[in-house]
Amino acid sequence: MGEFALISDILEALGDRAAVSPQAMKTVVVPPGDDATVVTPTPGWQHVASIDSFLANVHFPEKAPPELIGYRVLMASLSDLAAMAATPRYALVALSMEAALLKQDESWHCRLALGMAEAAREADMYICGGNLSQGPLAITVSVHGEVAEGCALLRSTGRAGHGLYVSGTLGGASACLRLGQTNIESLDNLTPLQACYFRPKARFDLLDEVGKASACIDISDGLLQDLGHLCDASSCGAKLQGGAIPLAPGATLEDALRGGDEYQLLLASEVPLLGCQRIGQLTEEAGIWLDEQQISADGYNHFHA
Amino acid sequence: MGEFALISDILEALGDRAAVSPQAMKTVVVPPGDDATVVTPTPGWQHVASIDSFLANVHFPEKAPPELIGYRVLMASLSDLAAMAATPRYALVALSMEAALLKQDESWHCRLALGMAEAAREADMYICGGNLSQGPLAITVSVHGEVAEGCALLRSTGRAGHGLYVSGTLGGASACLRLGQTNIESLDNLTPLQACYFRPKARFDLLDEVGKASACIDISDGLLQDLGHLCDASSCGAKLQGGAIPLAPGATLEDALRGGDEYQLLLASEVPLLGCQRIGQLTEEAGIWLDEQQISADGYNHFHA
Repeated sequence: MGEFALISDILEALGDRAAVSPQAMKTVVVPPGDDATVVTPTPGWQHVASIDSFLANVHFPEKAPPELIGYRVLMASLSDLAAMAATPRYALVALSMEAALLKQDESWHCRLALGMAEAAREADMYICGGNLSQGPLAITVSVHGEVAEGCALLRSTGRAGHGLYVSGTLGGASACLRLGQTNIESLDNLTPLQACYFRPKARFDLLDEVGKASACIDISDGLLQDLGHLCDASSCGAKLQGGAIPLAPGATLEDALRGGDEYQLLLASEVPLLGCQRIGQLTEEAGIWLDEQQISADGYNHFHA
Repeated sequence: MGEFALISDILEALGDRAAVSPQAMKTVVVPPGDDATVVTPTPGWQHVASIDSFLANVHFPEKAPPELIGYRVLMASLSDLAAMAATPRYALVALSMEAALLKQDESWHCRLALGMAEAAREADMYICGGNLSQGPLAITVSVHGEVAEGCALLRSTGRAGHGLYVSGTLGGASACLRLGQTNIESLDNLTPLQACYFRPKARFDLLDEVGKASACIDISDGLLQDLGHLCDASSCGAKLQGGAIPLAPGATLEDALRGGDEYQLLLASEVPLLGCQRIGQLTEEAGIWLDEQQISADGYNHFHA
């Protein structure tokens, strides 16, 4: 099967989420199929952009159902926009895969696209361009959103005394990996921990509340490491109350502190944030303290050279 | 060496082209280092976006000097924006590489960034975000530009009778590969064919002239295949004069017709285009004809499954 037939299959599987549908065409004025896509920005808003790569057996298990891989990689990518308090608009997706994968399952690429379309529908955005190449299985997603001018929420604007909040339970994705639960029998019967890993939710539902925060980062590398980034950027330290950290059922405190792949938000705020759990506060003094003990901020490092 | 140290090296090598420099900060208001970058669009302009992946030993020779790899992958990606008559603004870059590469050359990533910075400087745009992961050598580039509203140049708007033009000589990159000239001894002594392959120029210099054209595509998969795409999208056929096709010194007509990696523009136009060579015209009748002989439109197919 040739490149162009595969792309045509993928566009069909993306359905209303490919920027060829009437809804999409309101903002995406040139759909996939030209040299580039053309999007009309919202007047007065700023553009927010991020890119993430997901490699087979590093960032997702190769044998997982492709619907779950597609869902997960798009949601995980979109989480960076949620952390900026941005409204998602569109994504470009570069897929590298071996022809052998299609010999095992001739609809693998369509099933991947179906999962992406589901995530795109939930986030109310479109997939409006891509690239297909033959090579080791890897997916790179470039996500694009908008914020009203000056309203992007940074990680550098936290201040000592601000409360620290998380947007949901932590440690579930890490516990899923630790307990070897990544073999999926059926899409309809995910365990709660499998759902944590494979069906993360970029927290666009909290957009109004997030707007009250002073600083934000998404927890992709682990609570401690991402808190470390927020503290470094904001020139603060932090104190955490271990007992206040909300754990996913089946997750340990260690999963929550050091496990990656969460995609919940970590926020600093002067005011309480509805729907979020307060877990500590930023401090003048550098360093991260858990229940009066200093703790190192290491989490997941993508590059061990 | 850890992920964050490598990223810091890369930002330093990008220099004024990373969106942390004073020039860049005029448009890129949140530089790399947060969850996402924030860019201020030009009021009334539309956003133009494309993504491309480059895999080692498929899209570039792994052993080539990384400066040339970086230059080539960014210019090749930007070519899609030139084909839309868009002005380039910024790129996001996802790099996957093995730690072993840094053991052979600890500055490999910096040299790659230096090549990208050179291309970015020539195209007057910035690299304002990225992703680093450990895996088979591959580079994915998401490029972003702007066009005045309604001024994007499509491939679907050619009409029978319009002349067909190319923006420069063809076949050089293909001849470089065919003649096995991809081993580079020194960055300063590229042969003309090596320069065709490793130092393509996205044709932003022709932006004013391109604005007069009726349709455009960049020649990345070979003249015939890309002409086929333009004809299909415009519901036309085409007649080419073989003798009019400008060949790079050392390239054959076959290199020019079927060789990829050109990144010159193929344009349809009712009026002559300065600096471009007329090679034929669009026809009512479907099919592509070369000197009165019908010819198949196949070129480079990225996916042979």
